[in-house]
Amino acid sequence: MTTPAETPTADVRLPLRPGLEGLEPYGAPQLDVPVLLNVNENPYPPSEAVVADIADAVARAAHGLNRYPDRDFLELRTELAEYLRVESGVDVGAEQVWAANGSNEVMLHLLQAFGGPGRNVLSFAPTYSMYPEYARDTLTAWVAGRREADFTLDLTHVREQIAEHRPAVVLLASPNNPTGTALPLETVEAICEAAVDAGPTGPDGAPTAAVVVVDEAYGEFRREGVPSALTLLGRHPHLAVSRTMSKAFGMAGLRLGYLAATPALVDHLRVVRLPYHLSAVTQAAALAALRHRGELMAQVASLRAERDALVGWLRDHGLEVAESDANFVLFGLFPDRHEVWNGLLERGVLIREVGPEGWLRVSVGTPQETAAFKAALEEVLGW
Amino acid sequence: MTTPAETPTADVRLPLRPGLEGLEPYGAPQLDVPVLLNVNENPYPPSEAVVADIADAVARAAHGLNRYPDRDFLELRTELAEYLRVESGVDVGAEQVWAANGSNEVMLHLLQAFGGPGRNVLSFAPTYSMYPEYARDTLTAWVAGRREADFTLDLTHVREQIAEHRPAVVLLASPNNPTGTALPLETVEAICEAAVDAGPTGPDGAPTAAVVVVDEAYGEFRREGVPSALTLLGRHPHLAVSRTMSKAFGMAGLRLGYLAATPALVDHLRVVRLPYHLSAVTQAAALAALRHRGELMAQVASLRAERDALVGWLRDHGLEVAESDANFVLFGLFPDRHEVWNGLLERGVLIREVGPEGWLRVSVGTPQETAAFKAALEEVLGW
Repeated sequence: MTTPAETPTADVRLPLRPGLEGLEPYGAPQLDVPVLLNVNENPYPPSEAVVADIADAVARAAHGLNRYPDRDFLELRTELAEYLRVESGVDVGAEQVWAANGSNEVMLHLLQAFGGPGRNVLSFAPTYSMYPEYARDTLTAWVAGRREADFTLDLTHVREQIAEHRPAVVLLASPNNPTGTALPLETVEAICEAAVDAGPTGPDGAPTAAVVVVDEAYGEFRREGVPSALTLLGRHPHLAVSRTMSKAFGMAGLRLGYLAATPALVDHLRVVRLPYHLSAVTQAAALAALRHRGELMAQVASLRAERDALVGWLRDHGLEVAESDANFVLFGLFPDRHEVWNGLLERGVLIREVGPEGWLRVSVGTPQETAAFKAALEEVLGW
Repeated sequence: MTTPAETPTADVRLPLRPGLEGLEPYGAPQLDVPVLLNVNENPYPPSEAVVADIADAVARAAHGLNRYPDRDFLELRTELAEYLRVESGVDVGAEQVWAANGSNEVMLHLLQAFGGPGRNVLSFAPTYSMYPEYARDTLTAWVAGRREADFTLDLTHVREQIAEHRPAVVLLASPNNPTGTALPLETVEAICEAAVDAGPTGPDGAPTAAVVVVDEAYGEFRREGVPSALTLLGRHPHLAVSRTMSKAFGMAGLRLGYLAATPALVDHLRVVRLPYHLSAVTQAAALAALRHRGELMAQVASLRAERDALVGWLRDHGLEVAESDANFVLFGLFPDRHEVWNGLLERGVLIREVGPEGWLRVSVGTPQETAAFKAALEEVLGW
């Protein structure tokens, strides 16, 4: 690869925005290791039937690729709404659904519409490490309250934080990453109630609500009897529940995140989205994958069982394990977690060194991958 | 489609960010009309060979869709660099290339990295109507200098505007939309020189450069002998040249925009991009389309010829026509342009009512579409 021969002008300095100096791009280390249990991917590749359907759908869409895609992707929103209805038993209309290239773009749209300079986004740590970056990218101040020792939320603390910071957005991951903790419906409901009139002051001087965003990226992995925050949508116009096709659907490579909220909230997101942000290819592939939801949901059941078994096995060996409603498990506590992480890596198993000091996070893989993880951990810990 | 039955909490007000009140989502009207010459799409759909290659590539990628995509998409950046080398004769390395979901996301990354509160982005009107929205979305102040009566830039005026506003970014469309005007290389070079030390003050109190962005979305349609600003890249570390696969490549539905700049500038964009912003499907489809560049570039030559003939025909009929290096033509002047636009629409031809008062913009279509446009215009103007 050659580069232009001319010498660049000396001492030209780029006007990097204040706050970005010295930052590195976000991303989990991508190492070439036999057993990848570090980024909570679904370990099962799409079946041949799913692959064939995606290829057919993309071929049909490709005939019209010289034209811009459907800007409002109503067919995809309709099918996502139908999926939510089947998965959670909640009737959601297409006009209540929004989608983007990954739920990180959905979060960006939310903070572009409701955050910004002089405004706060409130969350509760430990939580997903990308959230502060969404805040930074939208110039919204990041405020982190705390989770309790068992990673649940204390409502008194939450209410105090809301009253103190008057956030534009309260961002709650449920199940939480990296801890796996799901929020009880009563907690989400109480936070929605606390958020009414608790947001920034509106243009007329009267208070607005804080938008409550429940990030259910791992929602499909929740245990029997744990409801989705989707069931609260009808009562709280300032509630948004986000989902993704990356995890339960096994489509991390497709980049399709979405949310459900009131049509009025969705309309505000439509103002800040870049026009044509969802390609015709993405729309076609997502629609094809959604047609196979039955098959893909069966995998979710098996991953859930695998997760519960892994939690039991770790506890049986005397480790602390956070309650998990996700496809990963946070376990510990290790005096030197890096040594454990590295010992696993040396045995070909990549997990994630993330979360509070002493804890490690492992994704739920195939039975073979879980067996490899267990065998490696037994060696590392000398069991 | 049903919605939840519960009554939403009364009088909850969403905390819409100041500046977004009452705004409607951007977008050209999408009407169902036989001849669509309104959004500068390439009128030629991909050939069966291109469609088959895209479907094959996506099917291969689909087997691994449960995994996150290559975050740095080096293969795609390498092929885009190779395409630029063939198209413009300029050697560009993969590390100098950046891509995103449409060149509008590329612009967003540029303004996220270099714009922001208290900073200006300077452009020269009339120009692309989305630019002020990118500024708004990144909280960068939008400053518009003027173009001359023939839509060229006056260097004295440009230098004055730079000195007055100390912009973080100077955004120049070449060919310009909606006028079709390409900038001479000498103008771009002079602006790059004027931009050194003319940007915002850096953290140490010393001036930084303004980043000069030349948006060559329509660059491949430039007339014989008109060079690309890519040829200036080696000399100006604060220059970025953006391109898209939407226009010349006929891939508007794919959403793939990109730019070339110094590796240092690209590294700043990597900090603000959302991780995994380019899906595995987009990467695979773009790589497949790039393998057919020879075929697709032949179409560009025919569209160029069609454009020049259309310019000639309009001038022969006594209309004013802006010089065009793009795949569209700005023509006028009409005392009531809306009436002309509407007359064409009534005859099944949709063009765009855009640009300075009195002008209309028509995209270059197939010979059949151009014939339909000419016939309709003859009727409307009573020729």
